[in-house]
Amino acid sequence: MPKEKIYIVGHRYPDTDAICAPIAYAFFLRKKGEGEVVPARTGKINPETRFVLNYFKVDIPVLIKSAAGKKIILLDHNERSQSPKNIEKGKIIEVIDHHKINFEYSDPIPFRTEPIGSTSTIIAKKFFEEKMKIKKDIAGILLSGILSDTVIFRSLTTTKEDIEIAKKLARLAGIKNIEEFGIEMKKQKASLKGKKVEEIIFSDFKNFTSAGKRVGIGQVEILDEKEFRERRGEIIKKLKWLSRKKNYGLLLFAATSIIKGDSHLLAAGETRYLEKAFGKKVVENEIYLPGVVSRKKQIVPPLMKAFRE
Amino acid sequence: MPKEKIYIVGHRYPDTDAICAPIAYAFFLRKKGEGEVVPARTGKINPETRFVLNYFKVDIPVLIKSAAGKKIILLDHNERSQSPKNIEKGKIIEVIDHHKINFEYSDPIPFRTEPIGSTSTIIAKKFFEEKMKIKKDIAGILLSGILSDTVIFRSLTTTKEDIEIAKKLARLAGIKNIEEFGIEMKKQKASLKGKKVEEIIFSDFKNFTSAGKRVGIGQVEILDEKEFRERRGEIIKKLKWLSRKKNYGLLLFAATSIIKGDSHLLAAGETRYLEKAFGKKVVENEIYLPGVVSRKKQIVPPLMKAFRE
Repeated sequence: MPKEKIYIVGHRYPDTDAICAPIAYAFFLRKKGEGEVVPARTGKINPETRFVLNYFKVDIPVLIKSAAGKKIILLDHNERSQSPKNIEKGKIIEVIDHHKINFEYSDPIPFRTEPIGSTSTIIAKKFFEEKMKIKKDIAGILLSGILSDTVIFRSLTTTKEDIEIAKKLARLAGIKNIEEFGIEMKKQKASLKGKKVEEIIFSDFKNFTSAGKRVGIGQVEILDEKEFRERRGEIIKKLKWLSRKKNYGLLLFAATSIIKGDSHLLAAGETRYLEKAFGKKVVENEIYLPGVVSRKKQIVPPLMKAFRE
Repeated sequence: MPKEKIYIVGHRYPDTDAICAPIAYAFFLRKKGEGEVVPARTGKINPETRFVLNYFKVDIPVLIKSAAGKKIILLDHNERSQSPKNIEKGKIIEVIDHHKINFEYSDPIPFRTEPIGSTSTIIAKKFFEEKMKIKKDIAGILLSGILSDTVIFRSLTTTKEDIEIAKKLARLAGIKNIEEFGIEMKKQKASLKGKKVEEIIFSDFKNFTSAGKRVGIGQVEILDEKEFRERRGEIIKKLKWLSRKKNYGLLLFAATSIIKGDSHLLAAGETRYLEKAFGKKVVENEIYLPGVVSRKKQIVPPLMKAFRE
């Protein structure tokens, strides 16, 4: 009997790690004889990811609209709200991730999370653990997943292991200057110029649920604060409209400067939770957070706490 | 600055795996220089586990009453209802388990589950992965954890990996006949004679929550059905009393014969869910399930499904 097809999929509104880790892990499992293993995605590729896939000449994963009736491996997320639609009608067979856990399932499955910079780092570790050769193109996309999620090793989530593994992968991929390659890659996404406001909000967007409330947080990295100031009013207007229409308890947008190491948060909905989380007033739908760059480590945990208490 | 004390703890109503895996993992982490790492438990040691610890001359883990203010590693469980009291006031720093997942936490942490026979198997794998030597006594208790949870390789949860690793551990522990040692160990627990009814119900007991309902399931292995028949009425009476007093949606007790490969389930509470789960009538608070021996794989999943639908 031929093995049933397996889909490997990252989170909604996929970033480079959520696209590249599935491609590499599908390759890994096919090599291990797991049959037809297909990398998949549930949303549009962003300009940074498109640059990476073009650079290493790797195909874009297939778009799936529903998980119903499918065997699925979840990568780079574990929360249901970030999985493909109808995930409850599919069969989850494995999870590999580096985020906080909010997961329930009816059967024991292999589940691995590590507090590390990217899921691509864990996938690379799996190749090393099994002593499987990593081809040039696969090494290149895994390196890109690490550089994207760690913001070229600048994010607080970056570990020594991420850096060591990225260096190994760069050698295998023929990338001589990691920093230069990373900046070239990041540049593709950092400009807000010419982008529609929805594109800006949803280019890297995560949903959470805490104490029964829906929370959405979009994040962009900006190199130029002036560009952000020009679009601020438009973004707030759209956030307000979306939070009512989609019934969000709180809808946020973070404009993060890695170089300055700060974030401007725009907010719509029950902003009192935001004030509680950061002990600061929200003024004209905005709160300034110096020293805050990581959504996962510095924005989500205090927010979750504020909702719970 | 000295490192903060770390407690490693298995599930409530601990069985041999929930006691032995923490002892071995504490040894592993101390060897790795993680400072003061202490194996712990939240309940009484059962006669089988007592036999094992005596046999290999290993100390009983410390009893902890609350997780408040403690750094905790959860082993052999992940659901809050099976963790020490006040776990929400402690800091969970890692989870290793082989059960289904129902877990939420505010920070990314190392989390590893595998669909395998015992948590002791995963702990043994960690020693092998890091090429750390396993001492005779540690090998002996890890072997005991595997034999206990897999019912000497007869449970449906048993994998090839459990058997291979148990054989390796037996060599290291100086156990020549695994089957004989396993039966000697199992005998300590299999008799209902002379035991109080609460002791019978809670000797291996798990709590679950599904669709807002509390479900409790005790399980004993029986070698002699007559012994079970003699205590049946008494057990049902106690289940009824407990389900009212402790507000259980459904309270179950499974008397499982590994040799015959069946279970007699006694039930109190909303037994219609039990009927829905197994498509059989509950007669005089009892349902007979031929072929069913695994609580985790054969009883809990259909029950969860029945509650959800």
